[in-house]
Amino acid sequence: MCAEASVAARPATNGVHPPQAGSRIERLFYRTTHAPQFLDITDDVQAVLQRSGMHHGFVVVFSRHTTAAVRINEAEPLLLQDMEAMLARIAPSNVYYRHNDLTIRTVNLTEDEDLNGHSHCQHLLMGASEAIPCVDGEMLLGRWQRIFLVELDCGRDREVIVQAIGAGA
Amino acid sequence: MCAEASVAARPATNGVHPPQAGSRIERLFYRTTHAPQFLDITDDVQAVLQRSGMHHGFVVVFSRHTTAAVRINEAEPLLLQDMEAMLARIAPSNVYYRHNDLTIRTVNLTEDEDLNGHSHCQHLLMGASEAIPCVDGEMLLGRWQRIFLVELDCGRDREVIVQAIGAGA
Amino acid sequence: MCAEASVAARPATNGVHPPQAGSRIERLFYRTTHAPQFLDITDDVQAVLQRSGMHHGFVVVFSRHTTAAVRINEAEPLLLQDMEAMLARIAPSNVYYRHNDLTIRTVNLTEDEDLNGHSHCQHLLMGASEAIPCVDGEMLLGRWQRIFLVELDCGRDREVIVQAIGAGA
Repeated sequence: MCAEASVAARPATNGVHPPQAGSRIERLFYRTTHAPQFLDITDDVQAVLQRSGMHHGFVVVFSRHTTAAVRINEAEPLLLQDMEAMLARIAPSNVYYRHNDLTIRTVNLTEDEDLNGHSHCQHLLMGASEAIPCVDGEMLLGRWQRIFLVELDCGRDREVIVQAIGAGA
Repeated sequence: MCAEASVAARPATNGVHPPQAGSRIERLFYRTTHAPQFLDITDDVQAVLQRSGMHHGFVVVFSRHTTAAVRINEAEPLLLQDMEAMLARIAPSNVYYRHNDLTIRTVNLTEDEDLNGHSHCQHLLMGASEAIPCVDGEMLLGRWQRIFLVELDCGRDREVIVQAIGAGA
Repeated sequence: MCAEASVAARPATNGVHPPQAGSRIERLFYRTTHAPQFLDITDDVQAVLQRSGMHHGFVVVFSRHTTAAVRINEAEPLLLQDMEAMLARIAPSNVYYRHNDLTIRTVNLTEDEDLNGHSHCQHLLMGASEAIPCVDGEMLLGRWQRIFLVELDCGRDREVIVQAIGAGA
């Protein structure tokens, strides 16, 4: 169901409109390779925060996709496999989805349409954004918390918005 | 389990305390007709953003209900049916919920109590709010992203808070 | 799988860096006793808001944990039991998780490692934060909405960040 993808995940950043000292918005670009894939983007988000110069405030991390989610969890490799298995149980890729049935579907069709009904269903239960409080230029993440872009579809180009918003000096 | 509802979804807005130039909070009112129902409220949220005059910042979209969620996904009609089917699998309406058992329940009872244990359970996995970054007066939504109020209970009056918060000029 | 815990949930607050009038960030500490456990922390969040002196803006409520979530739902005791049952169906504690298999796991190990693969999986579907709009010093919560810290692991010490962020006077 997915085209081949051999390029590893890679971040790329593109600053967008730093509207004032202590605030900043950046676009992070990634190339995922398969699904489900948990990409740990914590360090990239922290780098945006440092470039912003923001001391106190919070960061919004936002996925611009309907089949790739933003979630916070632990970066333990076996756990990621457990979570992948749970997602596959909740919305398996190998059952019937009307969204995948090109004999009845008429809208939002693209030339390289993926069969990704399961990806959308999994995304519905995970969400597009998280907001993380920051103090002294650091996100207040707990000991085990890491921020993930979760690829639920095939490997492809993905974009995450990171916005640092100051709450005063 | 639901009373009849024949009025279509309709938005209505009610400005609340625009505290400063570039920030605004509004209440959007809808009447849903059934469940699950995915109401695409993206244009209403964008209209609040435009009325705010905000250039850079973000928007919080917040459901004031425990059986109606705010989610971002794709507005493909067959996909919405797939997601409805998944929600029904995760928390079916036709199984036993203690919340629905009026022989044992003693609190939070209303005169027109719905049997909506499944609605609450589905809501727990979806959430009440999303935060969406904005640049140049536009939400940075991806190509397929639409904002939904997801009715999980019976058709009824619903209220969504939209808050535009500027991060400087 | 959980060590004994006999201390009831208790909040404790610790103000952190109120950066300006109308903004405030506080840490709330709780001791949970079992899982799943829905701790209603709404009054504690409201108290932070009042201490902030903020009139218009929003509150971010953020769990610093990967096995304890922040969610908004109704505080009806039987419903909480229904939701606990649903979580147990989605990710049961008594099935195999690679994260729990200490014969193959090599990273993120602690001395008192819990067998909590199911807790992480449940957390993935719930999320770490919610953002709640505020007007006139009050959160715009709906009639039935209460804010919960949801313990998914064993009873233990937990920390929630509450951040009030003003959007002008």
